[in-house]
Amino acid sequence: NRFTHKKFGNRGMSLEEDLNETNEYYRSTGRCVIHKKPTPIQVVHVDYPKRSAAKITEAYFKQASTTDYNGIYRGRYVDFEAKETRNKTSFPLQNIHPHQAEHMRDVVKHGGISFLIIRFSAVNETYLYDASYFHWWYFEQHKRKSIPKSDIETYGSFLMEGYTPRLDYLATIDKIYF
Amino acid sequence: NRFTHKKFGNRGMSLEEDLNETNEYYRSTGRCVIHKKPTPIQVVHVDYPKRSAAKITEAYFKQASTTDYNGIYRGRYVDFEAKETRNKTSFPLQNIHPHQAEHMRDVVKHGGISFLIIRFSAVNETYLYDASYFHWWYFEQHKRKSIPKSDIETYGSFLMEGYTPRLDYLATIDKIYF
Ligand SMILES: [Mg+2]
Ligand SMILES: [Mg+2]
Repeated sequence: NRFTHKKFGNRGMSLEEDLNETNEYYRSTGRCVIHKKPTPIQVVHVDYPKRSAAKITEAYFKQASTTDYNGIYRGRYVDFEAKETRNKTSFPLQNIHPHQAEHMRDVVKHGGISFLIIRFSAVNETYLYDASYFHWWYFEQHKRKSIPKSDIETYGSFLMEGYTPRLDYLATIDKIYF
Repeated sequence: NRFTHKKFGNRGMSLEEDLNETNEYYRSTGRCVIHKKPTPIQVVHVDYPKRSAAKITEAYFKQASTTDYNGIYRGRYVDFEAKETRNKTSFPLQNIHPHQAEHMRDVVKHGGISFLIIRFSAVNETYLYDASYFHWWYFEQHKRKSIPKSDIETYGSFLMEGYTPRLDYLATIDKIYF
């Protein structure tokens, strides 16, 4: 079943869990300050019971206008989106909302570091893929609706999984951006 | 009534609304990319009705572990917390959660720009107050539980209110941090 698959197939951890643990390790060891932003939620109704916490009884998930993660590393602004896909041969561009793509483009314009972290979950391979390559596929070409995995393998950086941290993406940032 | 008071007393806008409109103006004119982070919410139960959007039916507000706003300006990481107080003579330190104070301290360590934007709503005065001054009151001294308004007036920067943008805090950042 799904649980067994996840547990023993790839150690039961989603990309988001891997990144959150990695970021907590980085933060506690003083390497960087990078956090996941909370999921944007539209709150419609809140109950205020006596003697207990406010309870939200009606709310809806909203489309994020920026990316999942941002923060500071070695004095630089870092901003990225993390995505898993079950596709085996390509990363569908529709996984990224136009506002998010524009946000990443703007971050680069202002001198920040921006990239995608893409996991192909069927083969459990994770890559860091710079925003400028992504930008070309998303904004410049109009033929394909997905990025070939081979392009991500060639121009991206494979992120080896480890124990602590689980995904040492700062080592890759060191190589690519400094 | 409250509506009338807010509408004509200080143009009906909270500090958060002023900052969100300011940031949208800055973003759309290419000045910086700074956003408010979504409010952290613990989702407990979600209904998935057929043919309509997922509806959250039980959720709770969580304590934020970081600040309200962050982003990039002139290549620098910028991170701040915005707070309104009805106090007339001081800013109570308990308005800031320890995790938030530690977060601001860490941002400065990593080379970022960090500050509070404090509005004294009774007199409608808004100040930008650097994290290092705040740090002293929060972590170094143990006598007072609040920062005297006179200190914020002396070491902070008064933010004039305008029309577009409503609170031109980047002009103050230019003066203080560049
Ligand atoms: Mg994501
Ligand atoms: Mg606030």
